[in-house]
Order: sequence, then structure tokens, then C-alpha cells
Amino acid sequence: MKINPNYNILAASTSTIFGSGYLEYILDEAVRFLNTDEIIFIPYARPSGMSWEEYTESPAKAFAGKGVSVKGLHEFDRPKEALRKSQAIFTGGGNTFLLLKTLYEFDLMDELKSVIAGGTPYMGTSAGSNICGPDIGTTNDMPIVYPPSFGALNFLPFNINPHYLDPDPLSKHKGKTRETRIYEFHQFNSQMVLGLREGSWIEARQGVVELKGRLTARLFKPGVQAVEIAPGVLDF
Amino acid sequence: MKINPNYNILAASTSTIFGSGYLEYILDEAVRFLNTDEIIFIPYARPSGMSWEEYTESPAKAFAGKGVSVKGLHEFDRPKEALRKSQAIFTGGGNTFLLLKTLYEFDLMDELKSVIAGGTPYMGTSAGSNICGPDIGTTNDMPIVYPPSFGALNFLPFNINPHYLDPDPLSKHKGKTRETRIYEFHQFNSQMVLGLREGSWIEARQGVVELKGRLTARLFKPGVQAVEIAPGVLDF
Repeated sequence: MKINPNYNILAASTSTIFGSGYLEYILDEAVRFLNTDEIIFIPYARPSGMSWEEYTESPAKAFAGKGVSVKGLHEFDRPKEALRKSQAIFTGGGNTFLLLKTLYEFDLMDELKSVIAGGTPYMGTSAGSNICGPDIGTTNDMPIVYPPSFGALNFLPFNINPHYLDPDPLSKHKGKTRETRIYEFHQFNSQMVLGLREGSWIEARQGVVELKGRLTARLFKPGVQAVEIAPGVLDF
Repeated sequence: MKINPNYNILAASTSTIFGSGYLEYILDEAVRFLNTDEIIFIPYARPSGMSWEEYTESPAKAFAGKGVSVKGLHEFDRPKEALRKSQAIFTGGGNTFLLLKTLYEFDLMDELKSVIAGGTPYMGTSAGSNICGPDIGTTNDMPIVYPPSFGALNFLPFNINPHYLDPDPLSKHKGKTRETRIYEFHQFNSQMVLGLREGSWIEARQGVVELKGRLTARLFKPGVQAVEIAPGVLDF
């Protein structure tokens, strides 16, 4: 898999795993990866509609214990300049449509692409990881707002489906399984989709893309049966 | 609740309930409601990406047993005229984004609104019910294609969330529950949302809207706790 060797991307399925605190399972990894004492946080995905200010408190609190300070992008008068000058960027989860719409509205998509292409580390969780692929076509979120495009940051040459869930063979529910939804996606789109289970993340640096965490991930390519991918370097 | 007294709407959560065939649980009701021996089927939601032709076979087979013939809207050279002349219209489930995009592309939204306002019975299942509300903001589907708008047919003064699922108190999954998603929807939208469980449907005629089937439905209004609604006339 070829990606820009300047990219430093950490794209996690979730911010929080069952029975542990916000970012707890990945905090040491995040601190090592972001490699700075000052992070800019993009709070636009607003989980449960919480305000930017309120949302920024969660990562601020989590990283404070590691001596890393977190500032919300909304705190800056000139957000583009703030991104350009930032040491590291973290985009939290929430609603992917809202996140993407806000980034477009504030005209920050190109700036983010250029800053990350310049080597600034980018970490995302959930919706923040969703936007690392070519588009948001495999988000699990409801379309609560209408973005001007589904096109995303395209850091990774595949879409991520975060919080990936296996079909429940005992279910009596007739709604679609996650697998069926991704299959439908591939009737109209050609990029690969990685179903990333909670506790897994993707790390890309020096042109190498790795699956990290203890779990396998589920790889969907158009027209073929999905397969399980073990943690390690991704060479599909 | 005020709706156009000319409307004849049957909006079902699902086409199929566990352990039974396509439309089986609702077929008698549908035949009685549609009240014709010739139905036009809108197959644009294409579940699992199946073709319009292939998809139309399912309702054709189901209704054939009741002496009702089904023609796919794609079989007509002039779909607008076909809608105008139709005795009854049934829109099947699949992907809501694809359904809506196709209806807009074929310039059929206004035609559908006008035909249904003229009294032609409309039945929808799943995605076909989703588009009966003001917009598709509470669909469960993945955004596999980009429609020109999320605006829908607005037959009903509330959004439907089909295949409604209660939160699982034992779940260790940190992805959002359906309830959380609808709560997020209400941070940015004001219309009510009815969580319609599989086996339930809405019937509107002569200006009266009823919840039908054996189950309660879950009503979400912005800013207040969701409540259960019993089958019967809806007066919220």
C-alpha cells in the first residue's frame, strides 16, 4: 500500500473501550505518537451535541496527566494559522456528518491536508478516523446535517468503518448487519474498507501502514469475500 | 396531529420480520390498504445493490398470491406519467441515500408529492418509510451515494426511524445506541422522530394517523425524555 511517507496518522476505532476511561487504553501510545507537549483538538464532531468547549475538556483532562496540554481549535481566532503552527492535531469522535460539514464551512479541509502532508502528526478517534479515508461513505452515524460533500481527507487509501461489529448469528433483528452495509457501499464505490474493531487502530508513518491493538480487523474489497487481517504491517 | 386528509400512507418499519417471508406479516393489510389489483413498485433503494428488475420480483411474487400485479417503475418509458396514472405506489427498502438520490435524479420528488396529495395510496417499507418524513436524517443506512438534498417527501410531520432497536443494557460495545443517535439528531433538528419497531407500521388516512401492529413505538421530541406510544391514533 502506497501512502505519502510524510504522513503521521493514528486512526483509532474508538476513544473509549468498555470498562475504561476516555482514551485510557490508548493514551500512552497517543503521547508517544503525537510526540509533543501541546496538542490542538478539533471538537467539531460534538458527541451528543455537546459544545466545543465542553468536549475539549475530555482530551484536556486525559492528556493533562501526561504533561501534555490540549487547546481546542475553536479557541483560536485564526484556525488555519493555528493548524499550520500546531505540533500535533487530534480530532475526536461524535457525528461524522457534523464534523465534515463544519470543516468544510470553516474552509479547513485543504489546510488540514496540507499541514498533515507536511508531517504534522494527526490522531483521530471514530469520526476523526472516518475522515481519514477517501470519503465518509462508511460512517455509522445518522445524517443529522448535510455536508457540501461526502469527500474526506484521503490520508489513507481505504475507508475506515469504526466500531466495527460482527454479525450476531442469534439476532432476530432484520435491520442490516454492518457487513451488509459495507457490501452495499461496494456496489457504488471501489475503495477498500477496513472494519476496525474497538481497541484497534491504524498507524501510518514513513509510508508504512500498520494495524495495531490485539484484535484482527475485517478487510472488505469490492467483489470478494471479506477477510480478517492480523495486527502488523498492512500490505493489501 | 394535522396532516393532509387526502393522504393514504402506510409506512412500515420493515418488509420482513424474523422467521417469515417477504411482506408476509403485512400482506393482507397491504392488499386491503392499497385497494387495487395493480401496484407500481419503486425499486430504487436496491437492497444489497440488486438490480431494479431483480428487486421488483420480490413484491411481484408476494402480491401475486393475492391476485395483485406489480410493475416496477423502471419498466415505464415515462415514469412521471406512470405515477400519475397509478392506482397505488409501493416503495421498497434498501439504501435510503440511494433511493432519495435516484428520485431526485429522475425528478420524481414533486411528482410523487403531487400524486400522493391527490389521494393515491402510498406504501413504504424501511427506506420507503424513511422518505415519508420531512428528511432522511434518521435513516440507519450508510451514505453510500451523495443525494442533492436530505429533504424527503414530508407526508408525515415527523421522521421515522425504521428497524428501531432498544439499547442493549448488557452490551460492551461503545458505538452509539439508536437512542443516542436520535438525541444527536435533535441537537440540530426540531421535528419529532418515531422509532418504529419491526412489525409496526403507521397508517394515515382521512387526516388520522395511527400506529398499527402489536408493539409500542418510541417517540422522541427535542429536549424531553423519549416516551413509549401505544398502538392507536397518534395525537402528539
